[in-house]
Amino acid sequence: MAEMTGAEMTRDAARVPLRGEALAAALFAPRAVALVGASADPTKASSRPLGYLRGSGYAGNVYPINSGRRSIGAEPVYSSIEDLPEVPDHAFLMTPTAATVGAVEQCGRRGVPLVTVLAGGFAEAGPAGAQRQRELEQVAARYGIRLLGPSSLGVVNTRNGLTLTANAAFADVTGAGAGAGGTGGIVVASHSGSMIGALLSRGRVAGTAFSHLVSVGGEVDLSIGEICQATLADPAVTGYLLFLENLRHAGELRAFAAAAAKRGRPVLAYKLGRSAAAAELATSHTGVLAGEDDVADAFLADCGIARVHTLDGLLEGLPLLGRVPATPAPVAAARVGVVTTTGGGAAMVVDQLGVRGVTVVGPSAATLDALAAAGAPAAPGAIVDLTLAGTRPEVMSAALDTMLGCGEFDLVIAVVGSSARFSPTFAVQPIIDRADRPGLAAFLVPHAPEALASLRAAGVPAFGTPESCADTTYAAPDHSASVGTDLGTDVGADVGAAVGGVGRRLDEAASYALLAPLGVRAAEYRVLTIDELGPPAAATSATGTASTADGAAVSAATGSADLRFPVAVKALTGELGHKSDVGGVRLRVDAAGLAAAARDIRAAVAEHAEVDVTQVLVQTMESGLGDMLVGYRVDPYVGPLVLVAAGGVLTELYADRAIRLAPVDEATAAAMLDEVRATTVLRGYRGAPPGDLPALAALIAAVSRLAERSDVLEAEINPVLVRAQGEGALALDAVVHLRAQPAATPNTADDPLAADGPTDEEARA
Amino acid sequence: MAEMTGAEMTRDAARVPLRGEALAAALFAPRAVALVGASADPTKASSRPLGYLRGSGYAGNVYPINSGRRSIGAEPVYSSIEDLPEVPDHAFLMTPTAATVGAVEQCGRRGVPLVTVLAGGFAEAGPAGAQRQRELEQVAARYGIRLLGPSSLGVVNTRNGLTLTANAAFADVTGAGAGAGGTGGIVVASHSGSMIGALLSRGRVAGTAFSHLVSVGGEVDLSIGEICQATLADPAVTGYLLFLENLRHAGELRAFAAAAAKRGRPVLAYKLGRSAAAAELATSHTGVLAGEDDVADAFLADCGIARVHTLDGLLEGLPLLGRVPATPAPVAAARVGVVTTTGGGAAMVVDQLGVRGVTVVGPSAATLDALAAAGAPAAPGAIVDLTLAGTRPEVMSAALDTMLGCGEFDLVIAVVGSSARFSPTFAVQPIIDRADRPGLAAFLVPHAPEALASLRAAGVPAFGTPESCADTTYAAPDHSASVGTDLGTDVGADVGAAVGGVGRRLDEAASYALLAPLGVRAAEYRVLTIDELGPPAAATSATGTASTADGAAVSAATGSADLRFPVAVKALTGELGHKSDVGGVRLRVDAAGLAAAARDIRAAVAEHAEVDVTQVLVQTMESGLGDMLVGYRVDPYVGPLVLVAAGGVLTELYADRAIRLAPVDEATAAAMLDEVRATTVLRGYRGAPPGDLPALAALIAAVSRLAERSDVLEAEINPVLVRAQGEGALALDAVVHLRAQPAATPNTADDPLAADGPTDEEARA
Repeated sequence: MAEMTGAEMTRDAARVPLRGEALAAALFAPRAVALVGASADPTKASSRPLGYLRGSGYAGNVYPINSGRRSIGAEPVYSSIEDLPEVPDHAFLMTPTAATVGAVEQCGRRGVPLVTVLAGGFAEAGPAGAQRQRELEQVAARYGIRLLGPSSLGVVNTRNGLTLTANAAFADVTGAGAGAGGTGGIVVASHSGSMIGALLSRGRVAGTAFSHLVSVGGEVDLSIGEICQATLADPAVTGYLLFLENLRHAGELRAFAAAAAKRGRPVLAYKLGRSAAAAELATSHTGVLAGEDDVADAFLADCGIARVHTLDGLLEGLPLLGRVPATPAPVAAARVGVVTTTGGGAAMVVDQLGVRGVTVVGPSAATLDALAAAGAPAAPGAIVDLTLAGTRPEVMSAALDTMLGCGEFDLVIAVVGSSARFSPTFAVQPIIDRADRPGLAAFLVPHAPEALASLRAAGVPAFGTPESCADTTYAAPDHSASVGTDLGTDVGADVGAAVGGVGRRLDEAASYALLAPLGVRAAEYRVLTIDELGPPAAATSATGTASTADGAAVSAATGSADLRFPVAVKALTGELGHKSDVGGVRLRVDAAGLAAAARDIRAAVAEHAEVDVTQVLVQTMESGLGDMLVGYRVDPYVGPLVLVAAGGVLTELYADRAIRLAPVDEATAAAMLDEVRATTVLRGYRGAPPGDLPALAALIAAVSRLAERSDVLEAEINPVLVRAQGEGALALDAVVHLRAQPAATPNTADDPLAADGPTDEEARA
Repeated sequence: MAEMTGAEMTRDAARVPLRGEALAAALFAPRAVALVGASADPTKASSRPLGYLRGSGYAGNVYPINSGRRSIGAEPVYSSIEDLPEVPDHAFLMTPTAATVGAVEQCGRRGVPLVTVLAGGFAEAGPAGAQRQRELEQVAARYGIRLLGPSSLGVVNTRNGLTLTANAAFADVTGAGAGAGGTGGIVVASHSGSMIGALLSRGRVAGTAFSHLVSVGGEVDLSIGEICQATLADPAVTGYLLFLENLRHAGELRAFAAAAAKRGRPVLAYKLGRSAAAAELATSHTGVLAGEDDVADAFLADCGIARVHTLDGLLEGLPLLGRVPATPAPVAAARVGVVTTTGGGAAMVVDQLGVRGVTVVGPSAATLDALAAAGAPAAPGAIVDLTLAGTRPEVMSAALDTMLGCGEFDLVIAVVGSSARFSPTFAVQPIIDRADRPGLAAFLVPHAPEALASLRAAGVPAFGTPESCADTTYAAPDHSASVGTDLGTDVGADVGAAVGGVGRRLDEAASYALLAPLGVRAAEYRVLTIDELGPPAAATSATGTASTADGAAVSAATGSADLRFPVAVKALTGELGHKSDVGGVRLRVDAAGLAAAARDIRAAVAEHAEVDVTQVLVQTMESGLGDMLVGYRVDPYVGPLVLVAAGGVLTELYADRAIRLAPVDEATAAAMLDEVRATTVLRGYRGAPPGDLPALAALIAAVSRLAERSDVLEAEINPVLVRAQGEGALALDAVVHLRAQPAATPNTADDPLAADGPTDEEARA
């Protein structure tokens, strides 16, 4: 890196980094672009942008820079950024990794406000790469440069010919002037650079046309959220497709999503990590929350971003957004009707919907009568199968009008068979004629590109595979109206470091004490000091009255005359993860066995975990209808989360759980319970009484309010005992992890929760 | 229906129905075809076959028949089948439903050996339709006619221009002589008529070319299995695609599959019913086996038929079959490697594989070294990401050679990014150059039809979406070598009626007795007669020694001095479904409480179920590591099945189970256990000892041997208590359903199992 004078640094540091529309202008409509490292070798990726920009008729100035040559074809080549006749407002760096930081610095000296970096080899490339990335960030910050990448394949604006990308798939965008790429209104932002080419080419087949395509790469500075937000002011933009590999910069993504929802611009996302998450899971602390894919689901849903799981769904799905009303969770409650000319083709859609938990609703008897009266008779069942009669336009028209008008369906999917291929006037035209009806979509069973194109041109969401149709139908219900407040900043920036630290685990009593004010009730318990319990019962008494005498002794010693036996006796310490794994728990202990149990625990924990336990938590054994787990965690990317899951071993075996961004209200908590299969046994299962699900929902909402305090990183109540209706839900164990305290203020005495535990009075829920 | 003379009936009944190659000839290469009900109105489906046959240059004689007109265009039209100048060997009936039976009869009189019926309105259309179907079957049988349909859209042979279909999607097959449809070697057989058009048109896009396409409709006679089997002798046929709506005629399908496996012809199927099965489930008797989609999975796997779940997978997947070796279950064990030029694109495949339980395997350290040495360095991880360097042919070539040669992968999937679209020589050509390597497939991230076509033409299985790639990879491992014996006949024909009956439920003791000889061990039990137990203990003894005295009394009364207490006391009767739901079970009963428990049970069952219970089964309470459910059932379509599932409430909540066609050996039973998540807790979970899984597998195999006796319809052992290694697996409850006895022989005294239960000696496992 070149040395700078102090004056230079001062001058450069004063530049205000681009934001908003100024950022969008430099990113997507620069007056002048520098191509640093442009190659003359057509087999090299770094040769592409120059050819693309010329071929697609970009009107701004383009300056290839390559110190090794004077020209590329007829184009003059500059030897450095300093030699350019003007200051470009966007530089695309195609230099090798090692030269990148120096090149950015040269841009900074020249006053270039925005730099896109093609090279990889930064944070993803071990310690040396991480060091390079820090240098990159520093030099960009020093000069106030906005930085796209590293590992960015570039930026494309189809409406002005800015094909500023090294992606090989853009070759046919060029050669026919601006707009040859099929100019449209959809913005693509992708972590993967390859995918902008894939989406461009596949979008053309799917009738999806783009305005902007951005490969964001490593997001050291510009994030998907900020880039998309910068395009929101552009009136030509109609929607967004996101290809996500992670949820870094979740705050900016959320801020964008909230602004997009406000403007009625739909956002559809495909996110990787459905299975890689499983690997991350293994490394997480509790094995419950971190890195799981349902965290992404919860976050995106909370942002009003629809998420698809098929590539075709991403390409075909956007037109359906905004056309299916939101329903209370679960999403499966949207009322989907199917009308078809082909039972087999429609059954594929029904099947794919069913796999996703969306049940197709059949018409009512009244609607069946209305269909018959309108000349479109169908047999009762889940689908309206018109059979070949449906290929008569008047029959399909009558069926569509009846189904769209009856009020029984949030969405009607018309499935058209073989006639769609060569006879679109038969059954496809009636759908096109009703394109203004919001709750209508189509799936064509044969390969019928012309009919698909006609449907799409008319504005009908139209699907080429049963999978993309079902995938998008599942994703489509519109939750944008309930998108939460604009966080505006990255949660991750604040939380990440803290989560990286060890945190501090509170013992069970302190955890109860912290949770009690939120409204979390624990089964009755006492904290006893082992040394004060006296010798074991067997040593003091061999008579038949031992039990009563010992109980009295314990009561006297602890002031807990009213504690009901039998009890669970548990090591009280924040130093153990799973206390039952090291002999730290004894169940069904009666008064006579209490002292011995406590001593046994002390010995066992000392032996297995080398921890000296001086106190036990003694808790009344309670019975109920079932166990659940309620958890809370500050995710390093998306922030506070609350979770409810099947208790015990089920949590691990079946991942049967629901997650939301915290805090949640009790209605949302109840909706979470609807998603957890294990709650079936709490709803009056096989003659058992129904459980107190309102109390459980209230407990979930209470735990979620941990989001209001900044010192809690993680909490888990496991099990929560759910009792019969009206009898509540009780915490039978709890652990809270606090943020590790700053090294400068190690005085735990200031923190009441760090003391030896609450008094009995405090601990009483 | 027209009347016949006795002479006509005799003559017609003597005709031998077509089979095998003669059937194939009439079906796919008739010398003369009659089009009964051919229309001159081009908007009608019945107008199509004549135009198609003429347009596609079919060389046989074609006779349109329509009593209402003399010609269609230049074609002469005949007024009836009797007027034809020759006997056609295939008649396509396009008459209305009501006229169908009569038209078949006319064909029979004229001696037509094969009739295809377009009309619907038979078995699917209520009682009147069912009656029509019986008449159709009778008339076909009377004349020895083979019948395709009803509800068949017809038959196509692309190699001789026999476009004998009313499907609208075949319009472009015509007009250019035979073979214009893209003649190939793949046979399509579909329950859905619309799908033959969809597969033809979509196959063209996917590079899949067909020889024969058959819409089988309602299969009153010709089934998918028999039709496909008839084409096996055709040397031009290379593989089969099946679109299945049900598994009727499973026996014929299995016979075909076995014969196809023997000839090395791959069979790929898409089967509907993944969600409709859930509805069927609700109506089944036990809620466990019937109609569930995993029954279809088990059947198809047992037949060596690969099953995909995406439409694109069906179209693109066939070339991969036979290229991935079979592995011991679970299928997920196939070692799949991924090499790519684009991390994001490859991650989509990895993700989709992961969702299906297939984990991508990274290269070993040695292979990473070999890759680097060969000039294709990659970072350690699950995928070999060559980044943009992989677009250099020599780098991709080196990577492929190294991965294909290292022995670490059963299948290498090459994922190529944007360069595939316009620069196929970069990274696609190296794959084509290795097309003869069996364990190689490709997914192209952009829309790259030319590159896909080149790969496919070279024989490389090549996929256009990550979903189809993963779907087929999951389905592909080749199990054809282990396809079982040729059943040859439909199981359903025999079993269906029996399953339809009520069957006869054995009581618990009789069920144990039936299962014991197979090797199923139950926890120790006795059968006691309630009236012989004397008054309840409380009434005879109020002293502190009641327990012992009563135990002695019970022992004396029952000869069970060695039965260990506490016990479970259960109503012994075959009349109750869930005996615990009606108060028929008492747990943890000690000797003192036995008589009272038995009396309580009698009273409760009398009250809640109005059944008089005279005996109880008293069984020692045993403890172990976990409960499982082992079931057996004769499915009406696919025959005997064995199932193992998580026990208790988990069975219903999570459908955590594995199913196979019965019988199975212990190795297969062990593989089934690998598929059930609940067995995790039996494998040394959280410090618990490992369970006796070999004993559980032996029990599954034992239960599966019920398939060797014809009188058992269904059995369920629930729970099976799995104890620690070496300690076995014990039945704690069991119920066996026998086939309902024929009404003519109601003498249950002949059946020892119908007696009041076995003696203690017999019942001892």
